Amino acid sequence: MTFQPFLEAISKQIDNTIYGQHPNELYDPIRYIMSLGGKRLRPLLTTLSANLFIDDWQKCLKPAIAVEVFHNFTLMHDDIMDCAPLRRGKPTVHEKWNANTAILSGDVMLVNAYELLLDVETAQLPRVIKRFNRTAAEVCEGQQLDMNFETRSDVSQDEYIDMIRLKTSVLLGFAMELGGMIAGADETTTQLLYDAGLNMGLGFQLKDDLLDVYGDPEKFGKQVGGDIIANKKTFMLIEALLLAEGETKEKLDYWLHLEQGSYDTAAKVAAVTAIYTELGIDKIAESKSDEFFTKGFEALHNLPVAPERKKPLIEFAEFLVGRES
Amino acid sequence: MTFQPFLEAISKQIDNTIYGQHPNELYDPIRYIMSLGGKRLRPLLTTLSANLFIDDWQKCLKPAIAVEVFHNFTLMHDDIMDCAPLRRGKPTVHEKWNANTAILSGDVMLVNAYELLLDVETAQLPRVIKRFNRTAAEVCEGQQLDMNFETRSDVSQDEYIDMIRLKTSVLLGFAMELGGMIAGADETTTQLLYDAGLNMGLGFQLKDDLLDVYGDPEKFGKQVGGDIIANKKTFMLIEALLLAEGETKEKLDYWLHLEQGSYDTAAKVAAVTAIYTELGIDKIAESKSDEFFTKGFEALHNLPVAPERKKPLIEFAEFLVGRES
Repeated sequence: MTFQPFLEAISKQIDNTIYGQHPNELYDPIRYIMSLGGKRLRPLLTTLSANLFIDDWQKCLKPAIAVEVFHNFTLMHDDIMDCAPLRRGKPTVHEKWNANTAILSGDVMLVNAYELLLDVETAQLPRVIKRFNRTAAEVCEGQQLDMNFETRSDVSQDEYIDMIRLKTSVLLGFAMELGGMIAGADETTTQLLYDAGLNMGLGFQLKDDLLDVYGDPEKFGKQVGGDIIANKKTFMLIEALLLAEGETKEKLDYWLHLEQGSYDTAAKVAAVTAIYTELGIDKIAESKSDEFFTKGFEALHNLPVAPERKKPLIEFAEFLVGRES
Repeated sequence: MTFQPFLEAISKQIDNTIYGQHPNELYDPIRYIMSLGGKRLRPLLTTLSANLFIDDWQKCLKPAIAVEVFHNFTLMHDDIMDCAPLRRGKPTVHEKWNANTAILSGDVMLVNAYELLLDVETAQLPRVIKRFNRTAAEVCEGQQLDMNFETRSDVSQDEYIDMIRLKTSVLLGFAMELGGMIAGADETTTQLLYDAGLNMGLGFQLKDDLLDVYGDPEKFGKQVGGDIIANKKTFMLIEALLLAEGETKEKLDYWLHLEQGSYDTAAKVAAVTAIYTELGIDKIAESKSDEFFTKGFEALHNLPVAPERKKPLIEFAEFLVGRES
C-alpha cells in the first residue's frame, strides 16, 4: 500500500507525543485511549492531502495528530454520554476509571489538540484555528442532534444526513483541508479537499451503518446488530420506517416497541435484518453510500495536481470504500 | 469606582456574545451560565492590565471574555464532578438539564473560548494560544489534584497551595498577562503582570477559604460552613490538623469522622469554627492571604508604568483584598 509510510510516521508520532506529566490520574487515560489504535483515518487524510502539494508532508504530522487527539477526545466524552462499556474491544475510560476522570481527561485532550495545532506557520495560524473551531463546534452540534434523535420518532433522512455530516463528516473534511492549508494550497483547492473529505465522510458513515447490520462479525470491530438492538435511528431504520407497509410494518413496529431486556437480542437482529433485506434497504444504503463516495472522488479528480501525485490518497480512499471493518 | 467603566463594557460585551445557534439544547446552557453573573474578575483583570499601557483597552474585550467563558466552562464541568446542586444561588446546568448536556455544552464553551481568543494580532496569536493552553491544562491538573485530595488524609500545606495555584491562581495570572500581551508590553512586564495575578489569586482563594468559615452569611454568596460540612481539605483544616493537640485534637477528629447525615450540620460548623478560633487559624489564614496579596501588590508597584495609570487596577486589587462576599 502506498499509504503505509504515512501510517508508520503517524504511529511513531503518536507514540512520541507527550500529553502532560502530573497528575497521572489526568494523563493516563489519554495515553490509554490513544494507544487503543484505530484506523488513524484522520491524520492519514491530513498527511496524504499535504503530500499532494509538497514532499515534506512530515511537517504537518503534529497538526495531523491534533485531529486524531480531538477525535479521541470526542470518543471519550461520547462514551460517557452513551454509557458505552467498550471502545475498540477494551473498557472505556469512564468504565476503567470513572466518569469524572473521563470528563476531565477529555477536557485536557481538547487543550492538547490546540497545542498540537500550533505547529503551523504563524501566518496560517488564525485560519487553521478558526476552521478547527468551527469544525469542533459542529461535531458537538452533531452529537447533541444524535442524542435528541433518541427520543424522537419523526427523524427524516435529511435530518439524519445532516446529523452525520456534523458528527462525523466535517472532521474528515477539515482533516484534508488542514493538510492543504499547511502545504500552502489556495482557497479553491482547500475547498475541494474539504468537499472530498466531507463526502467521503458521509459515504463512510453510511457504510458503517450498513456494516453494523450486514458486516462479518469476524471482521467488523463492533458488535454486528448493535444499532438494531438499540433501535438507533440510522439511515437504514429511517428508510425501513418509510418503506414498510402492512404486515412488514407491523413486524417492524413489534420489534421496535419491545421493552429492553424482554426479548432475545439475536432474534431481534435476525428479524429486523430480514425486514431490511426484504425491503431492499441494504441496496438503498449501499447506493446512497456510493453516491457520496462518488462525489468525494469527483472532488479528488478535480484537484489541480498531477495524477501520480494523487496515487496514495486515491488508494487510501478506495481502501475506505472497500473496507469490511 | 474607577474600574466601573471596565465592568460595564465587559457586561455589554458578554450580552452581545453569540455562542452558537442550533441546536438550542447545546447553546441554551451556555447563555444560562454566562447570565448568572459573578464578579467578572478575570476579564476585569485583562482589561485593567491592558489599560496600563494603552488607551484603547477595548481592543482586548473579546479575549477578556474568552477567559470568562473558559472560567465558566470549568465551573460547568466541575459542578458535574462535585455533584453541586447550586451555582450562584441558581440550579447548576446538570441539574437544570442533565449531565450529558453539561458535558457537551461545556465542551463547546471551551471551543468558544478559543474562538474569542482569536481576536488578537496575528503576530501575537501563537504566544497567546500557547500561554492559554498551558494555563488551561494547569487548571485541569488543579481540579484533578483537588479530587485526589478528597480521599487522602495526609495533604500538606505545600500541596494545598500548589493545588489552588493550579486550580484558581494561574488563570488570574494569565488574565493579567493577556492584557499586557495584547497591549504590546515586553516579556519582563508581562511576567510581572502574571506574578501579580498569580499571587493575588492565591490570596483571593485563601480569603475565600476564610470567608467560607467566618464570612457574613448575608454577604457571602455561598453557604457559610460549606467546607466544614464537607470536610474539605482547605488551608484552614490542614493547619488545624497540624496544630491541634490533646482534647482539641480529639474533638476535631470526632467531628471529622462522623458519618454524613448522622449529625446536626449547624452544630458541626459551630464546633469546628470554635476549634479554628481557639487554635488561631483565622489569624494564620488571614496573614497567609495577606502575604500573597502583598507579593501581588509588590509586582504591581514594580510595573514600569506611571502611578496614575495604575490607579484603576490597584483600586480593583484593593477591592479584592477587602471583599466580604
